[in-house]
Amino acid sequence: MSSHADRLRLLREELARRRLDGFVVPLTDEHLSEYVGAYAQRLLWLTGFEGSAGAAVVLPEEAAIFVDGRYTLQVRDQVSADTWSYQSVPETSVAKWLRDHARPGARIGYDPWLHTKANVEAARGALAANGAEMVAVESNPVDAVWADRPEPSTARLVVQPDALAGRSSALKRQDIADALAAKDTDAVVLCALDSIAWAFNVRGRDVAHTPVALAYALVRANATAELFVDPAKVDETVLAHLGNAVAVRPREAFAASLDALSGQRVSVDPDRAVAAIFERLESAGAKIVERRDPVVLPKAIKNEAEIAGIVAAHLRDGAAVTRFLHWVDTVAAAVGGETELSAAARLEAFRAETGALRDLSFDTISGSGPNGAVVHYRVTEKTVRPIEAGTLYLVDSGAQYEDGTTDITRTIAIGEPTAEMRDRFTRVLKGHIALATALFPAGTRGGQLDTLARQHLWAAGLDYAHGTGHGVGHYLSVHEGPQRIAALSGGQAGGDEPLRAGMILSNEPGYYKAGHWGIRVENLIRVAERAVAGAEKPVLGFETLTLAPIDRRLIDLALLTPAERDWIDAYHARVLAEIGPLVPADVADWLGRAAAPL
Amino acid sequence: MSSHADRLRLLREELARRRLDGFVVPLTDEHLSEYVGAYAQRLLWLTGFEGSAGAAVVLPEEAAIFVDGRYTLQVRDQVSADTWSYQSVPETSVAKWLRDHARPGARIGYDPWLHTKANVEAARGALAANGAEMVAVESNPVDAVWADRPEPSTARLVVQPDALAGRSSALKRQDIADALAAKDTDAVVLCALDSIAWAFNVRGRDVAHTPVALAYALVRANATAELFVDPAKVDETVLAHLGNAVAVRPREAFAASLDALSGQRVSVDPDRAVAAIFERLESAGAKIVERRDPVVLPKAIKNEAEIAGIVAAHLRDGAAVTRFLHWVDTVAAAVGGETELSAAARLEAFRAETGALRDLSFDTISGSGPNGAVVHYRVTEKTVRPIEAGTLYLVDSGAQYEDGTTDITRTIAIGEPTAEMRDRFTRVLKGHIALATALFPAGTRGGQLDTLARQHLWAAGLDYAHGTGHGVGHYLSVHEGPQRIAALSGGQAGGDEPLRAGMILSNEPGYYKAGHWGIRVENLIRVAERAVAGAEKPVLGFETLTLAPIDRRLIDLALLTPAERDWIDAYHARVLAEIGPLVPADVADWLGRAAAPL
Repeated sequence: MSSHADRLRLLREELARRRLDGFVVPLTDEHLSEYVGAYAQRLLWLTGFEGSAGAAVVLPEEAAIFVDGRYTLQVRDQVSADTWSYQSVPETSVAKWLRDHARPGARIGYDPWLHTKANVEAARGALAANGAEMVAVESNPVDAVWADRPEPSTARLVVQPDALAGRSSALKRQDIADALAAKDTDAVVLCALDSIAWAFNVRGRDVAHTPVALAYALVRANATAELFVDPAKVDETVLAHLGNAVAVRPREAFAASLDALSGQRVSVDPDRAVAAIFERLESAGAKIVERRDPVVLPKAIKNEAEIAGIVAAHLRDGAAVTRFLHWVDTVAAAVGGETELSAAARLEAFRAETGALRDLSFDTISGSGPNGAVVHYRVTEKTVRPIEAGTLYLVDSGAQYEDGTTDITRTIAIGEPTAEMRDRFTRVLKGHIALATALFPAGTRGGQLDTLARQHLWAAGLDYAHGTGHGVGHYLSVHEGPQRIAALSGGQAGGDEPLRAGMILSNEPGYYKAGHWGIRVENLIRVAERAVAGAEKPVLGFETLTLAPIDRRLIDLALLTPAERDWIDAYHARVLAEIGPLVPADVADWLGRAAAPL
Repeated sequence: MSSHADRLRLLREELARRRLDGFVVPLTDEHLSEYVGAYAQRLLWLTGFEGSAGAAVVLPEEAAIFVDGRYTLQVRDQVSADTWSYQSVPETSVAKWLRDHARPGARIGYDPWLHTKANVEAARGALAANGAEMVAVESNPVDAVWADRPEPSTARLVVQPDALAGRSSALKRQDIADALAAKDTDAVVLCALDSIAWAFNVRGRDVAHTPVALAYALVRANATAELFVDPAKVDETVLAHLGNAVAVRPREAFAASLDALSGQRVSVDPDRAVAAIFERLESAGAKIVERRDPVVLPKAIKNEAEIAGIVAAHLRDGAAVTRFLHWVDTVAAAVGGETELSAAARLEAFRAETGALRDLSFDTISGSGPNGAVVHYRVTEKTVRPIEAGTLYLVDSGAQYEDGTTDITRTIAIGEPTAEMRDRFTRVLKGHIALATALFPAGTRGGQLDTLARQHLWAAGLDYAHGTGHGVGHYLSVHEGPQRIAALSGGQAGGDEPLRAGMILSNEPGYYKAGHWGIRVENLIRVAERAVAGAEKPVLGFETLTLAPIDRRLIDLALLTPAERDWIDAYHARVLAEIGPLVPADVADWLGRAAAPL
């Protein structure tokens, strides 16, 4: 296996052969996915960086890697300073860095299948001043020198039953077609893998943690569609499910198929389709209508069948998590000898024992003591710490079940917690409760609710440096748009989306004492209509979906209002009533104490 | 006096003479002022519309007037449906309407001294599709047919003493010059009248309610400046105050003076300078640097002397308002026979009796019963209602004193309030208190705090359709940017501005029962640093500036938390201690009861 320095040298030689003066290597795939298949892990292969977001730029004499604040330390650990310079986003950006480092007249290559149009335009604009240009490559030069590059997954598609989806693929396609016709549009290009999975009621296994298959789709105003996916992945059952109105064609045929849209009005989502698609449609003479992917909103607004599945998934998952919390209390904390790794494995085993686990919905964050303060911590053999007394243990985890996706964080006192731990935990919990109990008029955006979750930390001069809530899919992405609960000024998309009944979000305020411990309390919540006497507008609120006890030992009663105390007691009574019957007797017994009134 | 129909006909004839197929008439002046002088009231002259915001478009066969939701009823009352069609913004806009109504190839005129560049570009873009164009006029065609158009004001400038301003004009200009030099810029164009007044420590009387003079200014990187203002308005005292580094030139010389900036880097604020300035600078060959007016932020962040003046102004104003509230209680409510008009006059008289009143800071909103539910109500002989028992009386008013600008709203029960009135009032007050007592980290935007003021109304399915807080100037505009407390998604600018210690804002949640009564509780608040033990970031909070009792009869004690009750009692104790000694004995006696603990 070649060293990362060798790989960088090989890439530079390849760029020289192609007469390119540089190349941009993002971490994404042709669908702008958050999690990508091994075949698309070009940044990891080239640099050794294992984080979930980043980019690299290679110039003849310089090479830079761009990561955000979460990965400032990790990148130094994993990527050699001999050959790479570290750049922090958003303080700098690929475009800004190129402006300052590319030589006048340089030709900087990019793979148009791995960037949004806006991305390319920003870099192009930044380079224009010194006569340099962005050049789309025909094939990715990293792939040309990546000798042992994994083949894309060949996992087969499976049908997502109508009973779970709540609406047939034919009706979903008809909805899309109606929307196209209403706007006098001939077709829509779908690129987001979860949109395609949802629209066609299929699931795949091509990407870690998200049950999707690599595919593109075209849906036309007459409700027929083409699904561009490796035909070897589509068996008779799936073919029969898709029906005659859906033509299955090889994924490789997608780009050329765009040429046939010449003269037609084609809807494309600039945030969810790569630059190459726009370039191809433009040169084919199609009329591009930039509009949000029509699947995004109906996918986010769960229907009754989806909600029923999600509720069932949360009961199942809550029982597994409760068994785990019991194990932490009675084995890890009491007997000892357990670690972040063994605990994460134990939690996965409890989920697997449900017989329904398809995948984890993300790599479990299992953080003991100081590792709990690393917001996106991923435990490895090198970083693993024991579960030890006198600190906090934070576990953020989730599961993919056929009927729903879960995401839960619990923070557990190992041994006697300090007054500071209890104060911080209680402030986080008060924020969690404020959001869980908020009522708000229809039309309210997630960004308007974010402060409710922070106010009690703010009052003590504290805060957390992440959003409060993200959308969650139905047996799909654990991070699903468009809605989000986060300060609009934070620059993160989604906070400006009006919340609608049926949307699922996380409710996860936290507090992190760097070098010591971390706290986060996360439940999933569902937006629901609320009947309020005398209301002048439709009122919305949240129903909590996640069911597992919250560590009572970390609650400082003196900081709670009577209403907050009532909320915790009512939540625990519900956990006991709904989860108690689903766990073994010894766990139920423990739960009786863990979920007792304060 | 000609009829409005005649005026429209005259304007159409003038447009035909100029070979224009239409004309846009906004309601602003050459400085994009909120309040404009009589000479610039073209919309009022042409249509009869008396609202504070709006625009008109005149085409050969059609004419449309554009107003927002506040003025939907008023426009129908004041503007004839025979000749005008009513358009609602933001549902439509001048640009959108022109796109649909201007004939292909039409030449639509606009006065480039009355529109932002973005404004013109939006209309231009909308018209491009059917080959129509926007044409800048050399002189305003409305003025050509407006026979008795008032002359611009000739009021003299006065010096704002350094002791009140807290920083000399020379030092302020040096600050601007330093900022220009740091960015390698040669000069800045100042157009906003309050920016000019603040930078030069002068005040004027050219515009209603805002003590500013019609002027432009150029400040150069060497700290010299040109002030373009009618020389007849500048006496020897003001000249001596301005000093040798400031050249006073006629306002009419401003446009031509831009030509001399050829080849120089000139900073212009696209939100605060009209299109004509950009066009002139461009054709002169200046290098335009689009940047925010450098006065905006230092003007918003009040210095110690300004704050001391504002505190003094609020004591003086609080005493006048307290005398008025005593009068309402003991005369208007008890004796009867008073009206919205007589009460507003009474309030102004109490302010005038301070001997320090320079102007009201806006037309007093004096709304009895249903008129109180009209958010921007302006009492006239036609709409006036008595102050009568069994309803609420809402007074929103403010004063301009040499040492500060005030803005206060109180809602008063006339007779016995209903349970509904008390419930609504208490929810509004709880929101007011939540904002007044909020603590938040440095960097927090006003938009992040808006929900705190709404939460208790939302819980009952209620809301108010306006922002929660606007910035306020120091003996300048009562509506001053850049900061604002309002939902970011509402489309109103300012909510994304980080709050900084020294900024002044209003805190004015409300509730309006259309056709019945309105409630608003408004105090001005100052952003201040707060010492919080253990804080990990600088903490900010608010100091309440406004001092006048809040009607205890409207408070439903059962809805208050102990902390909220404590806040009200502490506020009233402060009002009693600080205002009590400033009012006559009978008023002080009354205040003792009005400000007693709950």
